[in-house]
Amino acid sequence: MSDITPVLSAIDRGLDHSLSRLFELLRIPSVSTDPAYTDDCVRAADWLVAELSGLGFTASRRDTSGKPMVVAHGGPAKETTTGPHVLFYGHYDVQPADPLDLWESGPFDPQLNDGSDGKIIVCRGASDDKGQLMTFVEAVRAIRAVHGDMPVPVTILFEGEEESGSPSLGPFLDAHQDELRADVAMVCDTGMWTPDTPAITTRLRGLAHDEVTIEAASRDLHSGMYGGSAQNPIRILSKVIAALHDETERIAIPGFYDDVVPLEAEVDAQWREMGFDETAFLDEIGLKTPFGEAGRPGLERIWARPTAEVNGMIGGYTGIGSKTVIPSQASAKFTFRLVADQDPAKVIEAFRTMVRDLIPEDCTASFSEDGGGSPALSLPLDSPYLAPARQAIADEWGTEAVLVGSGGSIPIVGDFKRKLGMDSLLIGFALDDDRIHSPNEKYNLKSFHSGIRTWARLLMSLRAS
Amino acid sequence: MSDITPVLSAIDRGLDHSLSRLFELLRIPSVSTDPAYTDDCVRAADWLVAELSGLGFTASRRDTSGKPMVVAHGGPAKETTTGPHVLFYGHYDVQPADPLDLWESGPFDPQLNDGSDGKIIVCRGASDDKGQLMTFVEAVRAIRAVHGDMPVPVTILFEGEEESGSPSLGPFLDAHQDELRADVAMVCDTGMWTPDTPAITTRLRGLAHDEVTIEAASRDLHSGMYGGSAQNPIRILSKVIAALHDETERIAIPGFYDDVVPLEAEVDAQWREMGFDETAFLDEIGLKTPFGEAGRPGLERIWARPTAEVNGMIGGYTGIGSKTVIPSQASAKFTFRLVADQDPAKVIEAFRTMVRDLIPEDCTASFSEDGGGSPALSLPLDSPYLAPARQAIADEWGTEAVLVGSGGSIPIVGDFKRKLGMDSLLIGFALDDDRIHSPNEKYNLKSFHSGIRTWARLLMSLRAS
Repeated sequence: MSDITPVLSAIDRGLDHSLSRLFELLRIPSVSTDPAYTDDCVRAADWLVAELSGLGFTASRRDTSGKPMVVAHGGPAKETTTGPHVLFYGHYDVQPADPLDLWESGPFDPQLNDGSDGKIIVCRGASDDKGQLMTFVEAVRAIRAVHGDMPVPVTILFEGEEESGSPSLGPFLDAHQDELRADVAMVCDTGMWTPDTPAITTRLRGLAHDEVTIEAASRDLHSGMYGGSAQNPIRILSKVIAALHDETERIAIPGFYDDVVPLEAEVDAQWREMGFDETAFLDEIGLKTPFGEAGRPGLERIWARPTAEVNGMIGGYTGIGSKTVIPSQASAKFTFRLVADQDPAKVIEAFRTMVRDLIPEDCTASFSEDGGGSPALSLPLDSPYLAPARQAIADEWGTEAVLVGSGGSIPIVGDFKRKLGMDSLLIGFALDDDRIHSPNEKYNLKSFHSGIRTWARLLMSLRAS
Repeated sequence: MSDITPVLSAIDRGLDHSLSRLFELLRIPSVSTDPAYTDDCVRAADWLVAELSGLGFTASRRDTSGKPMVVAHGGPAKETTTGPHVLFYGHYDVQPADPLDLWESGPFDPQLNDGSDGKIIVCRGASDDKGQLMTFVEAVRAIRAVHGDMPVPVTILFEGEEESGSPSLGPFLDAHQDELRADVAMVCDTGMWTPDTPAITTRLRGLAHDEVTIEAASRDLHSGMYGGSAQNPIRILSKVIAALHDETERIAIPGFYDDVVPLEAEVDAQWREMGFDETAFLDEIGLKTPFGEAGRPGLERIWARPTAEVNGMIGGYTGIGSKTVIPSQASAKFTFRLVADQDPAKVIEAFRTMVRDLIPEDCTASFSEDGGGSPALSLPLDSPYLAPARQAIADEWGTEAVLVGSGGSIPIVGDFKRKLGMDSLLIGFALDDDRIHSPNEKYNLKSFHSGIRTWARLLMSLRAS
């Protein structure tokens, strides 16, 4: 472990230069959603290729039908090492800067300002995701400066369309599976739990979605003529929705929980001690009262328990005023957040069976053709990559990382798992107050500095013993 | 009663002339919804004024901001008779003729054809409502020819906007209350139960309407981030809708049935023997299974029991595909069909109280500003006008009239009740197969002929004894 000491010293000594390089990248307005910035996206990719080439990586810009990928390979050949092969992922594109008049300095004119918690780097992309991806690049630089090469094989993949839904990423992974497959992915697009508490995101809920249309009469009916004799599809669909949960807010679809496993005791204990203030969490969206499965703490409900939501519903007359009609149909969109081993196809099938069982004679239910989804993802507690990551973080931050979840999916993690068979270590140093996607986005200098040091510690610790 | 015999003879002898006059009126394409026919509407009104003037009535065309009214007064002065003063209502406007290519003869070129049940008059307006209103005019003609004058004071009101929603009628009644107020209204816009069974419509359900909007979070939420912690207004509104009825399809709003009275035994017995084929009734709209309040016959459910319907509902994302959102609001439109003494305002208030009781913390319910409606209307079984009407019909048709209901409202009847304090006798001779509003509209010659004879019998019987 003493190999790390000179690397950390090099990082500390070189921090100003690291910051200068980050500022160079931040000055390139690589907005992926706006065609006006297409050339800037290419320029950002080229800048990264040049940086990585300068670090001894075999780096290249890979053009796609959208924005280019940057791929770089460094470290020992896979064949000559017993250490794990690491794929590092980040994205160089950023959100648009609008609304411009709310920025206190130019959105692409990076500033090092005083913040409430030390120095802060203010610029679009400072946190999401240029600052974060540069923590890894600068860690690589320091290791190379001290040791001449990486301790393990490292592949770097930077994309330029993350803020545009990553349309080219799936096809690119498919086309370059052999080149990009590694033992573990490291993804730097997540955050800390608090400024003092680092986090590793080890679980992402999955998703299943479906749409239901209930039909009854062959046309909309006059409610005076037929009211009291004919079925009303809105009422039937409402009954279905009302029956989805029992009085404890547990989902009432038969078999729905078959593949849900209890939260690990270690994680449960950690979450209960994390001081999650659900009331404050809800206050930001105008709500006051935590709601959901009875008897489960808030973090478990949003990270580790499945949900059934209606995302939209429409039926009958929805214009101005009143219309005395019994509608002929009503439809609703449903999504289920999934956890553990729940299979989206099995969940959708159970849902459909329940719907069919609930609808009366004279009503038919039809479902969307593309009902489906993706399962939950998690990094097992016994993953061989989790222990060194926790150790590196604990050594750097002086406190244990909390193992957090994400209620939503992160598509790249699913792609890495399904297309390349890799688990992902989701580690990032962003903070809740970083204002990503908003004016005056910032990244704490401490996040940048300790982030570089954390990756250096982790990479060095992965070297085969 | 012998006074009627020469009147009936006059009607029979004059039938061809009566038919000729009806044909004249039918040839005027008085379509009220299409401005191209505005002059024809005026022409139809003028034609009626001339006819009624020719019958000794003080008749005039009354222009409105829409199509003109025709008002005529005849018979003895109110002060000189103890018999009731009668207001007869009909409408001279007709539906558009489209689609023209489905007519077997010109839509405004009346034909006397052979039908399955005797001769039929084919023309737009033959049944709705020119044929029907002319049954009354021709009855007046025959009575006058035989007796020189009407047996009771008669006011006639024909409007020209019934197919356009009668926008001028309410203001016209308000402005001419004293002129138009009578002891009873006779409205000729309804039908027979079967070709052999005449009917008097003695009850119309009322209506109350409201719109509910449920709001929760201050914006639409990401279902991954907040699913498991935040309220979903579509789910809450669905629970409200599902709770509106109990498992017997009885409406579960507290106090909802307080002012509902049981069906009169005589009417109940009549309805049970009317051979209503609810399955056939539903088959026309693609349904098979009667649905509604358990243990109630079909006719009672659609004519004499209240309902609660959702007419439309919308919330969240309703476009193409899936969107992982928890919506911030959902809304639905409700109508209640009312019976007996149910008060629309009281029903709406009870509904709103139930909604407020059902919604959880963090949700708010708001309601439409114009929630309201109109109460049910009925002609009491002991109305002094019902017995002579039943007798006139029985004498003419050789069978008792059935006392039917209408599940929907007929605005003119409500206006007569509320603005002029009059009950209405709803008597008409249209048949279910008359194809009103459709191509090849027809009116049976028997309906026309016996209709004239029925009104003559009824008018003569009203003379003070």
